[in-house]
Amino acid sequence: MTGSSRPSNSAPIGVFDSGIGGLTVVSELRRAIPHERILYVGDTARVPYGGKSAETVTRYSREISDLLLIEGAKMIVVACNTASALAVPSLAPDYSVPMIGVLEPGAAAAVKATRSGRIGVIGTRATIASQAYTKAIEQLNPELSVNTIACPLLVPLIEEGLLDDEITEAVLRRYLTPMLAGGIDTLVLGCTHYPLLKGVIGRICGPGVSLVDSAENCALAVKELLDSDPAKGSSTSSGLDILLTDCSEGFLRIAEKSLALTIDSLSVRRVGN
Amino acid sequence: MTGSSRPSNSAPIGVFDSGIGGLTVVSELRRAIPHERILYVGDTARVPYGGKSAETVTRYSREISDLLLIEGAKMIVVACNTASALAVPSLAPDYSVPMIGVLEPGAAAAVKATRSGRIGVIGTRATIASQAYTKAIEQLNPELSVNTIACPLLVPLIEEGLLDDEITEAVLRRYLTPMLAGGIDTLVLGCTHYPLLKGVIGRICGPGVSLVDSAENCALAVKELLDSDPAKGSSTSSGLDILLTDCSEGFLRIAEKSLALTIDSLSVRRVGN
Repeated sequence: MTGSSRPSNSAPIGVFDSGIGGLTVVSELRRAIPHERILYVGDTARVPYGGKSAETVTRYSREISDLLLIEGAKMIVVACNTASALAVPSLAPDYSVPMIGVLEPGAAAAVKATRSGRIGVIGTRATIASQAYTKAIEQLNPELSVNTIACPLLVPLIEEGLLDDEITEAVLRRYLTPMLAGGIDTLVLGCTHYPLLKGVIGRICGPGVSLVDSAENCALAVKELLDSDPAKGSSTSSGLDILLTDCSEGFLRIAEKSLALTIDSLSVRRVGN
Repeated sequence: MTGSSRPSNSAPIGVFDSGIGGLTVVSELRRAIPHERILYVGDTARVPYGGKSAETVTRYSREISDLLLIEGAKMIVVACNTASALAVPSLAPDYSVPMIGVLEPGAAAAVKATRSGRIGVIGTRATIASQAYTKAIEQLNPELSVNTIACPLLVPLIEEGLLDDEITEAVLRRYLTPMLAGGIDTLVLGCTHYPLLKGVIGRICGPGVSLVDSAENCALAVKELLDSDPAKGSSTSSGLDILLTDCSEGFLRIAEKSLALTIDSLSVRRVGN
């Protein structure tokens, strides 16, 4: 059991992702629980996780989680679908604080949203290969049909800030057209980067398809956990502190411009290898 | 001085890159010095390098170079422009075997190729920000004009195998159009991934622009070094052994399909702490 001293009410909520994607979760957390202090770690020295193996993603996730515990986090929010799919099941039992991923909240929201019973899921290569969404959705309702597709180019496009761009739209049309032809009525944005493309994805899918934002549903799950345990919430100070494992120019641009986040402190710290 | 036991003639040439890009150098080495044994390390656990800081790229390059020395490499070919620009100048003096990057051979070839004196350079964000090509070219001939542009989406597109694809072409047209309007007659492919796009880059640039392939020029520099030092060449066994720091499905596909490389052994080894 990897632990730390008993978290106090001034303890932050620890959040991590490989890069900027997890900031969409931070943005939703800010809205759902505005009085909590958040410590965000972006593993920019090893970004992206989405094409890497379960073993490597688990090792990276453990190193970042250990760092968050050292910094006194009272819970760990894994704001990365790849790490949620590949690492959370094996890591969560090792930690003394709750570890919440984005996968189960997203799967539950999709099951609730669908009318036709046909759900689409988009994500990184590693998330889709793990079949974690399909399993989570089928566990909730084995009658549903789940159609998945890996979209490996979306994270680089988003990390480059091409959020409303004809190249991004062409890439998305290629990924989504076969899935839309299959007649889904619900699409899970199974990567925390993807809410930054909600506008263009919505235009391509049309009004008949509900978009399930894993960032939004994860923030609601965190709020529920805090509400259920008065000892955990809320912090005595709000704010957003950011630690990156390598300096990243694009990070701040996206955080401030696209998500309107105010950052109280930003530092770079080396983690693992 | 980081050293190893004195390299013998059975010692391999060590080559590394963050991913599959360095295989274009391997392909050219196979052609230039077919009787040499090559040990290639692809740092797939931390790919890509091109958006990361000089400090981080130098640390990764040192870890991989140490691994190559442990494996008995008689020289280290840094088959990655980002590492050549950011890490080689500070690392090379620390090693007892020669360390050859791709940058100087490419710069020299560009200076030789240009007639109009206007040279373009494309590369990763980190390579272009370092201005290493501009400095190397101006050192050879201060009269030349150098126009550079970072092309951060090309590596993800290539790693996904979209080598002859309309999306890749649209991305390339966006990057290259302003540079071509400036009237260059020589374009340095300043990233070892880019020779895999030679066909489409050539179509966009037209016959009036010479493409300088840093992979090809690096292989010629390695051959020159071996020819000048009979103690170093040639190996008593040829072949290609590959070590990856994380398993990568796309790696083998590109190596075998696009570069027609025969791989004698492939293994995965964790690097760093």
